[in-house]
Amino acid sequence: MPLQKISPLQKARQQYQPRIPALLRDLRNVHFKEITGARKPPEALRKLFPKTFDLPSYQLVAGKSGGEKLKVGALFSGGQAAGGHNVIAGLFDAGLDVIGFLNGPSGLVENRWMAVKEIDSFRNQGGFDLLGSGRTKIETQTQLDSALKTALAHNLDGLIIIGGDDSNTNAAILAEYFLAHGCNTRVVGVPKTIDGDLRSADIEMSFGFDSACKTYSEIIGNIARDALSAKKYYHIIKLMGRSASHIVLECALATCPNLALIGEERRSLEVIVAEIADLICHRHDAGKDYGVVLIPEGLIEFVPELSKNLKVEKDPHGNVLLSQIQTEKLVIDLVVKELHSRKFQGKFNFQEHFLGYEGRACLPTNFDANYCYALGLLSAAAVRQKLTGVICAIQNLHLPADQWQLKAVPIVQLMHFEMRTGVEKPVIQKTIVDLKRNPYVYFSRSRKLWEIEDHYRYPGPIQFYGDPELTDCGPQSIMMG
Amino acid sequence: MPLQKISPLQKARQQYQPRIPALLRDLRNVHFKEITGARKPPEALRKLFPKTFDLPSYQLVAGKSGGEKLKVGALFSGGQAAGGHNVIAGLFDAGLDVIGFLNGPSGLVENRWMAVKEIDSFRNQGGFDLLGSGRTKIETQTQLDSALKTALAHNLDGLIIIGGDDSNTNAAILAEYFLAHGCNTRVVGVPKTIDGDLRSADIEMSFGFDSACKTYSEIIGNIARDALSAKKYYHIIKLMGRSASHIVLECALATCPNLALIGEERRSLEVIVAEIADLICHRHDAGKDYGVVLIPEGLIEFVPELSKNLKVEKDPHGNVLLSQIQTEKLVIDLVVKELHSRKFQGKFNFQEHFLGYEGRACLPTNFDANYCYALGLLSAAAVRQKLTGVICAIQNLHLPADQWQLKAVPIVQLMHFEMRTGVEKPVIQKTIVDLKRNPYVYFSRSRKLWEIEDHYRYPGPIQFYGDPELTDCGPQSIMMG
Repeated sequence: MPLQKISPLQKARQQYQPRIPALLRDLRNVHFKEITGARKPPEALRKLFPKTFDLPSYQLVAGKSGGEKLKVGALFSGGQAAGGHNVIAGLFDAGLDVIGFLNGPSGLVENRWMAVKEIDSFRNQGGFDLLGSGRTKIETQTQLDSALKTALAHNLDGLIIIGGDDSNTNAAILAEYFLAHGCNTRVVGVPKTIDGDLRSADIEMSFGFDSACKTYSEIIGNIARDALSAKKYYHIIKLMGRSASHIVLECALATCPNLALIGEERRSLEVIVAEIADLICHRHDAGKDYGVVLIPEGLIEFVPELSKNLKVEKDPHGNVLLSQIQTEKLVIDLVVKELHSRKFQGKFNFQEHFLGYEGRACLPTNFDANYCYALGLLSAAAVRQKLTGVICAIQNLHLPADQWQLKAVPIVQLMHFEMRTGVEKPVIQKTIVDLKRNPYVYFSRSRKLWEIEDHYRYPGPIQFYGDPELTDCGPQSIMMG
Repeated sequence: MPLQKISPLQKARQQYQPRIPALLRDLRNVHFKEITGARKPPEALRKLFPKTFDLPSYQLVAGKSGGEKLKVGALFSGGQAAGGHNVIAGLFDAGLDVIGFLNGPSGLVENRWMAVKEIDSFRNQGGFDLLGSGRTKIETQTQLDSALKTALAHNLDGLIIIGGDDSNTNAAILAEYFLAHGCNTRVVGVPKTIDGDLRSADIEMSFGFDSACKTYSEIIGNIARDALSAKKYYHIIKLMGRSASHIVLECALATCPNLALIGEERRSLEVIVAEIADLICHRHDAGKDYGVVLIPEGLIEFVPELSKNLKVEKDPHGNVLLSQIQTEKLVIDLVVKELHSRKFQGKFNFQEHFLGYEGRACLPTNFDANYCYALGLLSAAAVRQKLTGVICAIQNLHLPADQWQLKAVPIVQLMHFEMRTGVEKPVIQKTIVDLKRNPYVYFSRSRKLWEIEDHYRYPGPIQFYGDPELTDCGPQSIMMG
């Protein structure tokens, strides 16, 4: 009885029809309308982005647009996020000629590409393996020239960059560069990252965040139920997500752990260690020598004394090289010392976990599958209307897809200046957890209750079929507003 | 918008009606019939089990049985396995008075218990948290006496021990001890363990194996798709499962990694290291510096030179203290050395993972939910007919539930003598991977194909609703026969 080469679920998901706003069903009957109220970028950016600085924002509305056959190139940039293949499917289904640059931006620079002739086996599937991905930045004059040469060689009407904050910064630079050199290739960005830190007044959420958080929450819930049954271990679970603690916050809302550290609270290491030690002591007094603690990968960046005093290396993307710092080990060591100094008599056995690669390339949730397919169609519409230097922004994501608002926003509106390896550079500002918004406020009010009593919540595995309540809800970070 | 205390999926699963064989729908119309062909235990066991040594095996058939109200105690023993709560639900729905001993066998010894008055919120849920679990062995005279005293104090008609090989050894000892002391409490074992090593001619599979393997396979598939997209890392994934490599084999069949080590092949460390180094070199030649390798937790036990020469500590359960040996680190270190000695010019960046707690207390698959509920009802039937020293054995698990065969088998039939901490003891023999059976044979034939070409298979998250092909298939270790 040989096994089928693809799993039954892979096969079933290939057949899923994403739900999308009605406007996106026929791109010949839509057009982008300028809208007011755009955010003004810092004036200093005008020099660097003379041609795109004053661009307006746009909203997609009913109307007419051209129907000529256009050709676009697409690429994935940076870490995997579930749903990327549906962006390509959207471009493909919009009737564009699509070529894909291989293994990230370097594929554009080095003109390594493939024609996308078939997309059906990748519909609603995880990963970026149709094209591969990569982290090359296009910065040098040589790289910019090579990218321009590639765009001209293929006579591309559009270039779709599916990436995070840095990749979309790149998209803005390329758009400006192409305009300056009379190249008709329009550059459109698509907001991708599981980290959830690419947000703005216009961008409610990057794709992949929902699928990653739901996968991590499944695992955290399973571990919590194990902890509650075995009553033996503290499970210290570090979650991927670079600087910001969006993923920890989302997973905490989904699973109600005993403690979840939010980097953006900017507590000192001393306070953090005391808080964990208090938790362990108080739970021990309640007869409990087990528990679940969530730690963000980027915790260290927000710890005042560490971020100042440690010589923390940053990569060219401005990210602290977090994998070099074993945050969870550092924290555990300090907690053990603290417990010793308190002459704690109970048990403190811990298990460490790091959740990251487990949730980046999973099958996209229905939410991410719908969202990404809509993003693909929306970027096709932007190219049709010759918009450039814009990023796709879909709003009202907490509502059903037929009520989503479809926008294209100049990327320069998201940018500011930041020190990167000693040089001030124009970059998209990372959005960290807002301590005034509902998700954090709700978490902050609830967490005391979770400390001693166990209110673990078990989300279970992502479901694709059955009651929409089980299958279609977006992340709490959106649903709570 | 406050979140509901339990997740939508927890709630939905509480409503699931397990599918069971028709015979189990009304226990007043069934009885156990003696069957022939039982395996003869080693004669040396007769001395230790004089009252249960000659017991026959039984099969449940249509018939009449007594209808008096009986009282049973139940306990969970050892590590969590998905579906345990459904065993209790089966006892409860069979109309028995059920009390649960708390935190494993120690609850029986110390007479800590709770009455099970409600089970609905635990139906089809993961974990053992209704009662807790524990690893105490009941061995000493004092412990046996205490257990007897508890059984008498509650006037128990039955004691249901839900556990692995050692816990069922304990069940056999208790059954014999109770009989010898004129106690009417019948002891019935239920085969539980994610490790899959509690099998026999009668027991096709322990419960929890399917759910754990499907959870691990989801994660392995996600990691493999990430590897294929990023093309940066070798992911070295160690899987829980004590000595035997059943879990690695099952997950390998589900995900088709580039390499999966099966301890039972008993290869020398040198051969294993050379095999991994070959993989890395050959893939490098094919332009691939990434991959996925599965390693069993118990690998080291089967490595001839290590199991002989290393002073590997064993715990009282006869398990090598595997968590003390970081198998994956040892293997990686040696592979790096080997690559150096070969003057390998490519990249070898790896990410280590250990999957264990992620899959023990998950929501049970439909297979495990059905299987466990049937096991609960079957143990109730065994107590009604005053069987003791038996373990529940359900056969034909590869067929739909209405074709399952329901048996009760004397535990002593599974036992042999083994050295434990220097003393020969009667224990249930662990079943390791059979290199002659279909699952291994299929794996062994396919794996060459998986090495260089990437045939990763992505099972995705466990599904509970929709097409039965997505929701109801048991583990390949059973389906392949």
